[in-house]
Amino acid sequence: MTYCVGLLVEGGLVMIADTRTNAGLDDISTYRKLHHFNVPGERVMMLASAGNLSVTQSVLSLLAEGVEDDEGGRLRLVETETMFQAAQLVGRAIRRVRSIERQGFEAANLRFEVSFLFGGQIGSDPMRLFLIYSAGNFIECSGDAPFLQIGEHKYGKPILDRAVRFDTDISDALKVGLISMDSTMRSNLGVGLPIDIAVARRGALDLDVSRRIEVGDIYFHDLRERWSAALRAAHKAIPRPPYGGLKG
Amino acid sequence: MTYCVGLLVEGGLVMIADTRTNAGLDDISTYRKLHHFNVPGERVMMLASAGNLSVTQSVLSLLAEGVEDDEGGRLRLVETETMFQAAQLVGRAIRRVRSIERQGFEAANLRFEVSFLFGGQIGSDPMRLFLIYSAGNFIECSGDAPFLQIGEHKYGKPILDRAVRFDTDISDALKVGLISMDSTMRSNLGVGLPIDIAVARRGALDLDVSRRIEVGDIYFHDLRERWSAALRAAHKAIPRPPYGGLKG
Repeated sequence: MTYCVGLLVEGGLVMIADTRTNAGLDDISTYRKLHHFNVPGERVMMLASAGNLSVTQSVLSLLAEGVEDDEGGRLRLVETETMFQAAQLVGRAIRRVRSIERQGFEAANLRFEVSFLFGGQIGSDPMRLFLIYSAGNFIECSGDAPFLQIGEHKYGKPILDRAVRFDTDISDALKVGLISMDSTMRSNLGVGLPIDIAVARRGALDLDVSRRIEVGDIYFHDLRERWSAALRAAHKAIPRPPYGGLKG
Repeated sequence: MTYCVGLLVEGGLVMIADTRTNAGLDDISTYRKLHHFNVPGERVMMLASAGNLSVTQSVLSLLAEGVEDDEGGRLRLVETETMFQAAQLVGRAIRRVRSIERQGFEAANLRFEVSFLFGGQIGSDPMRLFLIYSAGNFIECSGDAPFLQIGEHKYGKPILDRAVRFDTDISDALKVGLISMDSTMRSNLGVGLPIDIAVARRGALDLDVSRRIEVGDIYFHDLRERWSAALRAAHKAIPRPPYGGLKG
């Protein structure tokens, strides 16, 4: 399994992804799922992936080497002119990999299932965040719900629903994203440490943070402990139900 | 959608179920999903259902009227002698409905998908809680993870994972179950008020609480407000991440 969350707030863009992949519970590995296409001063782009690892890796390689267009030309992700065109290119790369793999996937009865979070900023173009589906189509994050998730998204959604708004400080957005990741890791063993994080401030056209949080990370360990303790205290502070025989 | 949770703790059994059913987002109704088969002093049994409403209602009617066995006899749920035999009877009722409906479901390309939480106590037999699948097979709740869920279960699982143990007080189990229901209702509009709750203390052989929580319920409203405020305070009390450019 995989869990990735992207948060687009007033201050900028945060992306968090776990690194656990598994082909069955007896075959678990660590693979990077959060990638950057970064040209400081010109553009900052982050891409997080969920789904079949062979497909997502091929999509990444195509985006780096260039995706063929109908006229036989090639376009690399770092050559796109707007974030919308860049998201279209990711979609085209997915469709390209599908056309190559279709026959083999059908023969092996495999499902072609991938999804991507793609966000960033190019020059004076607005900062944007997209969720790109396995058909290559995509939706865009809006201020009303300033986050998007892929993979095992349900366990970590309640805290995002409650705690993240467009005007949430970008450091707090990262913090709440890490709490969301913690909730997911506790409920699904298929999502696990280490996790990768990336932060880009709006207009900076560079990464502010790009870091791997390993098992021994002191801040993340402390965050998990504090969150657990606070939840325990929170439900203990609520009065017991006054219903029926439970009264008094 | 549906969300039902059953908690079997030292003090007894708690069951909570929402009442929202939908055939498309434009066709939403309220149906009871939590039912009792109760003979005070002899037995207390609760059954919560998720999935196709026509199937779950037929299963309930069969359990009330009696399920045919191979010898042409009929057994009603209130006539079973142990909770294990009662769970088997629920499974048999599901298979019976499947055999009646199979042809029609296949013709209409409908999936036969139901699940049940079934718990209670008969005489001096131990109190037990089961999750019964659409094939009629079932698993039993154990002290290591003293709750079972059906339906839209992921949003409400993190708080259960953290806050419920076998020695949790039964009033607290009900309270945490309501928090779990609240988290689910906030993230999935297909799960909604009113909700039904039932509580039976171990050995009492009767319902301690059987109640519908409506939209205006003062305690539940207060619980939701307090939980929201506590979560806000909890994540605000955690220091901001010290990573990279976010430092200081």
